[in-house]
Amino acid sequence: MDTHEKAALELSLVPGIGAWLQSNIWRASPDLAQVLHMSGSELEAIGISKEAGAAIRSRRYRPMAEEILDWAGREKCRLVARGSPEYPALLGEIHDPPLVLYCRGKLEALDRPGVAIVGTRRPTFYGLQMAQGMAYDLAKRDLVVISGLARGVDGAAHRGCLDAGGCTIAVLGCGIDVVYPREHRQLTQQIIGNGLIISEFPPGTSPAPQNFPVRNRIISGIALGTVIVEASEYSGSLITARLAMDQNREVFAVPGNLTSPQSFGPNFLIKQGAKLVQVWRDIVEELPAEVRHGILAKEDSGSAEKPDLELVTEEENSILEMLAYDQPVQFDRILKLSGMGIPQLSELLLNLEMRGRIRQVPGNLYIRVARRPT
Amino acid sequence: MDTHEKAALELSLVPGIGAWLQSNIWRASPDLAQVLHMSGSELEAIGISKEAGAAIRSRRYRPMAEEILDWAGREKCRLVARGSPEYPALLGEIHDPPLVLYCRGKLEALDRPGVAIVGTRRPTFYGLQMAQGMAYDLAKRDLVVISGLARGVDGAAHRGCLDAGGCTIAVLGCGIDVVYPREHRQLTQQIIGNGLIISEFPPGTSPAPQNFPVRNRIISGIALGTVIVEASEYSGSLITARLAMDQNREVFAVPGNLTSPQSFGPNFLIKQGAKLVQVWRDIVEELPAEVRHGILAKEDSGSAEKPDLELVTEEENSILEMLAYDQPVQFDRILKLSGMGIPQLSELLLNLEMRGRIRQVPGNLYIRVARRPT
Repeated sequence: MDTHEKAALELSLVPGIGAWLQSNIWRASPDLAQVLHMSGSELEAIGISKEAGAAIRSRRYRPMAEEILDWAGREKCRLVARGSPEYPALLGEIHDPPLVLYCRGKLEALDRPGVAIVGTRRPTFYGLQMAQGMAYDLAKRDLVVISGLARGVDGAAHRGCLDAGGCTIAVLGCGIDVVYPREHRQLTQQIIGNGLIISEFPPGTSPAPQNFPVRNRIISGIALGTVIVEASEYSGSLITARLAMDQNREVFAVPGNLTSPQSFGPNFLIKQGAKLVQVWRDIVEELPAEVRHGILAKEDSGSAEKPDLELVTEEENSILEMLAYDQPVQFDRILKLSGMGIPQLSELLLNLEMRGRIRQVPGNLYIRVARRPT
Repeated sequence: MDTHEKAALELSLVPGIGAWLQSNIWRASPDLAQVLHMSGSELEAIGISKEAGAAIRSRRYRPMAEEILDWAGREKCRLVARGSPEYPALLGEIHDPPLVLYCRGKLEALDRPGVAIVGTRRPTFYGLQMAQGMAYDLAKRDLVVISGLARGVDGAAHRGCLDAGGCTIAVLGCGIDVVYPREHRQLTQQIIGNGLIISEFPPGTSPAPQNFPVRNRIISGIALGTVIVEASEYSGSLITARLAMDQNREVFAVPGNLTSPQSFGPNFLIKQGAKLVQVWRDIVEELPAEVRHGILAKEDSGSAEKPDLELVTEEENSILEMLAYDQPVQFDRILKLSGMGIPQLSELLLNLEMRGRIRQVPGNLYIRVARRPT
């Protein structure tokens, strides 16, 4: 008797059985081992071609499945089949979930609430800064950051999450054993150590262009919402955004100057109904109640006592004087200049922010706020 | 017997009768000459204080009204009283229209559809460029551009409109004879020659800070919609936007980078429901049907024949090669490089834009569009 996992793997390896047919098979029979013993006409009835049906019935891909399972055992790769308890519940809700996910890293990442951050492979400095900053801020609120490990925005999102000590998931458009892009070799190792890389493609699959739009549905599919940071007019990130909308997930976008071609995509999506994001709170506010309440309760617990709105202590004033009205300053820089400890400085900044004297912008940057109308 | 205009003027001069009481008076009796002969208790019934009522009944401000009318006759200043055919219909629909508008320039500007463009007095280069560019593009579609003649975004909006040979209205926060800010002396003269300056404040009124929020309701009140270009957190432009929303007028905003404090306001407004503007069409699409149809019909009439989508002529190709994918180029520059005439080049650009090969951004700038997903 074949295990469920092995049956799922074997079916997923049959050429011509793509994402749609995989979900057709699931709808016809979630007992996947059973599918291997269906008659030719039963398989045809669920939309499988004669050729693919013959391949299933002849068990032609059984040896390959066994080989992959052996390989996975040796190479610390976990296979998660649809229907197993580790399979991400949100992914099961999309139109066409894959039967198998190849995973490397901390499997429990799949079980935690996450937000996807995606964008162009050719971002501006602003785009990189926003991707990294937004990922940092979300990771600090214990959200998993999901992205596609591509050059540019994706890489910055993974890095921002890791910088915050967070957990990040990279969804690949190639086999889990293929390093692509090359310059992300080290980043990949860091992600495996602190999060997870996943792929629906069998080991050895090369990063063919047609894999990426397919992969995008998994990025948006395992996320509660997707943030688009920069995307030019024909960027694949706009496809991810459309998929997220089709999957009834939240779509967020970081606005940018009209003169920047990379901001065309996010601005366009906002015009179409995506939520404009200024700070991490704009994202958290749209998440399901149980996730949102947990995060916001934790966030506000440090500040139960309402401070006086007008009085500014000498210490607070020294912080205000380090900040500018027209240029954000990094937390680390304030920390260094102030000579304070992190908890003390954080509380001070929070108090000043609650009183409207300063404002936080993505990337743990702070800016001073003018007190009178200009 | 007093004329309607003279009665309106006299009532508007009485201290303590501000915008709200002026509209109370109008609701009680649109026959304003009649109001001058009301009893003390009748005046009190419409909310006028004893002191103001006594001032009305004693006709204390009649000599001042006559003096202003004389002055206006000499100084080419037209008074437009509420109820007169020249009074802008849209302004009559707000909660608190003024009884009198002092006007200098082309009065017919009040009768044409207009859009307000406002923003901070301290814009970035991007803000100036967008204000001027958006005003230029709207003026080219025969829309009146309305603003507040302030430094920064307002000035750029008036200038952009004038550059396009358009008609612009400046609403002042001081008397119509007061030049403020000083550096806009020449601009004021150009506006009078090609549009209109208006004020509800009597001649000689200095530009006191409290006048500007009051003036803002007239900017949004005579416009079909208001575009916010840049505004920091406590900018008066946000007040104008709120007024426009209260007046049930469209509110538009030009997005910008989160790292720019001047873009905080527009981004925040978009989050609150203002429409994000990428190009002039985004504004025109929200205007009342009769205005919208007129503009779009005219716009598309030059391109009745549908060109082949794929073929690019040699001429078109020479234009494409002048453009970049990542940096917009000014129309005037393309014109110079191409050696073509304006009508020929315009048609060519329109054809390329309709086929998705180029894109126009505010300020009559063009950018090339990548053909394949990146």
